[in-house]
Amino acid sequence: MLDQLTGTDKGLVHALETVVVNTPFASFCGAQILNASPGSVELAIDVRPEIMNQHHGFVHGAVLGFVADSACAWAAGTLAGDVVTSEYKLHFLAPAVGQRILGRGKVIKASSKIVVTQADIVCVNKGSEKLVAVALATIVKV
Amino acid sequence: MLDQLTGTDKGLVHALETVVVNTPFASFCGAQILNASPGSVELAIDVRPEIMNQHHGFVHGAVLGFVADSACAWAAGTLAGDVVTSEYKLHFLAPAVGQRILGRGKVIKASSKIVVTQADIVCVNKGSEKLVAVALATIVKV
Amino acid sequence: MLDQLTGTDKGLVHALETVVVNTPFASFCGAQILNASPGSVELAIDVRPEIMNQHHGFVHGAVLGFVADSACAWAAGTLAGDVVTSEYKLHFLAPAVGQRILGRGKVIKASSKIVVTQADIVCVNKGSEKLVAVALATIVKV
Amino acid sequence: MLDQLTGTDKGLVHALETVVVNTPFASFCGAQILNASPGSVELAIDVRPEIMNQHHGFVHGAVLGFVADSACAWAAGTLAGDVVTSEYKLHFLAPAVGQRILGRGKVIKASSKIVVTQADIVCVNKGSEKLVAVALATIVKV
Repeated sequence: MLDQLTGTDKGLVHALETVVVNTPFASFCGAQILNASPGSVELAIDVRPEIMNQHHGFVHGAVLGFVADSACAWAAGTLAGDVVTSEYKLHFLAPAVGQRILGRGKVIKASSKIVVTQADIVCVNKGSEKLVAVALATIVKV
Repeated sequence: MLDQLTGTDKGLVHALETVVVNTPFASFCGAQILNASPGSVELAIDVRPEIMNQHHGFVHGAVLGFVADSACAWAAGTLAGDVVTSEYKLHFLAPAVGQRILGRGKVIKASSKIVVTQADIVCVNKGSEKLVAVALATIVKV
Repeated sequence: MLDQLTGTDKGLVHALETVVVNTPFASFCGAQILNASPGSVELAIDVRPEIMNQHHGFVHGAVLGFVADSACAWAAGTLAGDVVTSEYKLHFLAPAVGQRILGRGKVIKASSKIVVTQADIVCVNKGSEKLVAVALATIVKV
Repeated sequence: MLDQLTGTDKGLVHALETVVVNTPFASFCGAQILNASPGSVELAIDVRPEIMNQHHGFVHGAVLGFVADSACAWAAGTLAGDVVTSEYKLHFLAPAVGQRILGRGKVIKASSKIVVTQADIVCVNKGSEKLVAVALATIVKV
């Protein structure tokens, strides 16, 4: 994913922004990189209910899945460069009601082949945050 | 999800088509119900690469995640009516290259509160099928 | 699992010790309840290498699985009473080398039917702790 | 795990029996290799209720976890040689009541670094089989 790793957090943010530009689905979702440092990343998307919701009026799980997968893969990418997601598990904890979704990814363990990561998915509704999903993922170096 | 369960497969297909109409993200993805019977469902989406791809040029994992989650939830819905996904695990097996994604969901075990389901996610490229992801999910009755 | 929930942490520890006594596999493993409070629990086992190891000389994953499953189920039990594990995912992070295994379980979200929990599995080797596994589990009220 | 892969199924069974002998926890559980072929394995254990049960009188989930983990890792080992389990997810489907537990592991996809596997865990009660758990695992070559 990240072709070039840099030593500065600003460099990591910039590298991830380039990933977003080159990832049609991430661009379509409007993914924004809020923070990045070695082993962690925070991204956000703005909710477009007319596209992103499910049948109960909440943000669709697939959108939360995108944020979870990206938070995990991009956190791994800050340490491991170009990566792909091997597998993830996603728990939905509460209905996602709000205007903005945050994904906070963190590396738990990076080994030579595999990076184990976790992510918290938070929904922001009128300024207050709620944890709506958690994920555990296996990310693999390309 | 399914407000009315019917005894015929045609009725199940029709009920799921109504779910798609009422689910903005599923409508956006163009989800089509190919088959449905008690305990199983098959859906399809046509790939729009300019929106649905990732940075290596394959179909994005979040799109496969949508198909997996829907295949599992809708298979559960054929037995349990209105449901939500509690959690799922998704393994990516191969790059998703093709024009069409199929999701085949099946109930493994339905108990009073919880329905355990699995799904195979298949990518169709120029007429030939390839298994690109598998999922195991916990679906809960509303 | 817990037939009686009490308002005091000492009461929770005592209730869990009764669970251990009534659970042959937990008794066999020598599970000890170190701490318990509403929504969290810490347990320990002493490693018996002649029984509990695998072929590389580390503690067997099934023993870590026992600690993970118990930490999750018992943490849920402090809030929900008698429970069973519906599913869990367990990541192995590092070889488990040491004399003692600790399991620290915590409730992430308790709803009416389901309790989502996580656990850290720690191996203590000559007094120093190492995180060797993490788990995410779905626990269901009986 | 398997130091030497052989071209015959009898050779695979023999190689796995050597693994069991060298794995204290597997020996303790009395793991028996019933069948092995490239990409699949079937193992069995006899239930000793006084050690292997949980508090409701069923076989403990950790014992099913051992069978699931072993079925997945050993199935991968038939193709990949020495392996370790990276992660698995285990769903419990029904109370495990019976005298014998079977684990049937199968490789879904073997790539250069990672082998994705699944397992069915079956409990045999007075001669009749019941599916009591299913697993999906990531196995890594050493």
